[in-house]
Amino acid sequence: MNDLSHDRSKGCVHLIGAGPGAADLLTLRALRLIQSADVVVHDRLVSPEIMSLVPESCRRLDVGKTSGFHAVPQEQINAILVDLAQQGLRVARLKGGDPLIFGRGSEEAEACRIAGVPFDYTPGITSAQGAASSTGVPLTHRGLASGLRYVTGHRARDAELDLDWASLASTDTTLVVYMGVANIAEIARQLMAHGLPADLPVLAVASATTPREMRVLSTLATIAADTSDARPEAPVLFIIGHVVSLYRPEAVAQTGQGIMVHA
Amino acid sequence: MNDLSHDRSKGCVHLIGAGPGAADLLTLRALRLIQSADVVVHDRLVSPEIMSLVPESCRRLDVGKTSGFHAVPQEQINAILVDLAQQGLRVARLKGGDPLIFGRGSEEAEACRIAGVPFDYTPGITSAQGAASSTGVPLTHRGLASGLRYVTGHRARDAELDLDWASLASTDTTLVVYMGVANIAEIARQLMAHGLPADLPVLAVASATTPREMRVLSTLATIAADTSDARPEAPVLFIIGHVVSLYRPEAVAQTGQGIMVHA
Ligand SMILES: C[S@@+](CC[C@H](N)C(=O)[O-])C[C@H]1O[C@@H](n2cnc3c(N)ncnc32)[C@H](O)[C@@H]1O
Ligand SMILES: C[S@@+](CC[C@H](N)C(=O)[O-])C[C@H]1O[C@@H](n2cnc3c(N)ncnc32)[C@H](O)[C@@H]1O
Repeated sequence: MNDLSHDRSKGCVHLIGAGPGAADLLTLRALRLIQSADVVVHDRLVSPEIMSLVPESCRRLDVGKTSGFHAVPQEQINAILVDLAQQGLRVARLKGGDPLIFGRGSEEAEACRIAGVPFDYTPGITSAQGAASSTGVPLTHRGLASGLRYVTGHRARDAELDLDWASLASTDTTLVVYMGVANIAEIARQLMAHGLPADLPVLAVASATTPREMRVLSTLATIAADTSDARPEAPVLFIIGHVVSLYRPEAVAQTGQGIMVHA
Repeated sequence: MNDLSHDRSKGCVHLIGAGPGAADLLTLRALRLIQSADVVVHDRLVSPEIMSLVPESCRRLDVGKTSGFHAVPQEQINAILVDLAQQGLRVARLKGGDPLIFGRGSEEAEACRIAGVPFDYTPGITSAQGAASSTGVPLTHRGLASGLRYVTGHRARDAELDLDWASLASTDTTLVVYMGVANIAEIARQLMAHGLPADLPVLAVASATTPREMRVLSTLATIAADTSDARPEAPVLFIIGHVVSLYRPEAVAQTGQGIMVHA
């Protein structure tokens, strides 16, 4: 640790989106901040590919949540960030995707603000965009989807899924469900009950943009069974809507980084 | 032009998101593709900061749309991309934000596919995420917004705004309106008519993440008047929802790149 990092006035927290997983989908700003940080605080969603960009000399702190079990509660993560910054360290808080989309980045920011710790945000490619690019499924497309919606399929223990089904059941909007694996059966059932066609296409994408990427092409009627058969490893999201009809798996070939479509 | 670029079999089109504007919000992959392209085809939304990263030796083609007037029609852009690739050139098609969110990237891809031209997508930070990070307004936040929605406020000439107002009027979802300046008065009026509170906060953000960034903090009742007073220069988007209450302009200070919040 150098002298500078002991200067308490230098301490700060950068809340950084690491993107969906591929190392080269990091932004230039995120890379610069990671490379000049004293400590990187990361969680499970930050891919090994991204973590390999963290300099050897940089301290790493894993506050990752393992499935169903919060390794480090959010309150404690907040306290850790504030504490490190108050030691004078430049903290790079790396989060999967974007810190401000289902990322709780703003809760960590709020803790910094209250403690008087300077902070800033760096956006990251959210996983829906990563999945769209790597599968070739557009999120909006003239005639197929004029808008886009992100919801979470997660629910608090024993609580009902708190989604406005009537408003979600629109065939004109692409619906992306984050954190939806556990409840995809109920989500699909409710969307059909509220009027979406049983044959509306659905694409589940796991570990989008990484070498572990896996896709399951299905429909509202069959996605729950197909997902439980295919058992994709977390993280997984679901793209629901007519745009999925543009997915052409047979036309997609890997070209090292990214996907090159050969007609 | 080197020999390689005349090898017709090498021709391809990379559909690349340039992000919201700041040069360092480009992804590493986008930068690499731009730097190895034979020709960059760009439009008005790609900022001068981003264009300054294009090597001097690289050919540039501006197919930019000037306001209200489509400089080059989409059909013709599609034909240009196919033609350049069929000449054996590596084409970097640079688009503002993400190519698959209100970007018509998938229409250009479709033209490539039909012509047998290989193509791929590289995601970019969409402007909503850029605006969120630079203003500190989260797109989701526990207790304020459990979901996120992107719509377009653009309408075809003389047509009605074709939005599902009842479903949009939810206080639990952050609503981001792209391309909404011309119709913000009608949008705000309809959202209120369908039940959103007149004092729901709205933040208009122009040229997010660039040195030209400008914000207008308002409410549903006053956003139309405030926008026409402030006359923000394009591009502009609107963030509508309770998350805007977390915006604290007085606490925000520029630190070169990005914003550092001092509590
Ligand atoms: C707590 S949320 C965080 C979302 C993140 N902030 C973002 O912008 O992508 C976790 C969920 O994101 C989605 N996710 C994150 N990375 C993903 C990836 N590489 N592939 C597919 N889904 C992903 C999954 O739905 C996962 O359950
Ligand atoms: C044709 S759409 C393209 C959107 C782009 N593909 C994206 O993902 O951001 C153009 C609209 O994007 C929004 N936009 C693009 N860049 C912006 C920026 N830097 N600041 C604010 N709004 C922006 C504006 O609403 C503009 O009217």
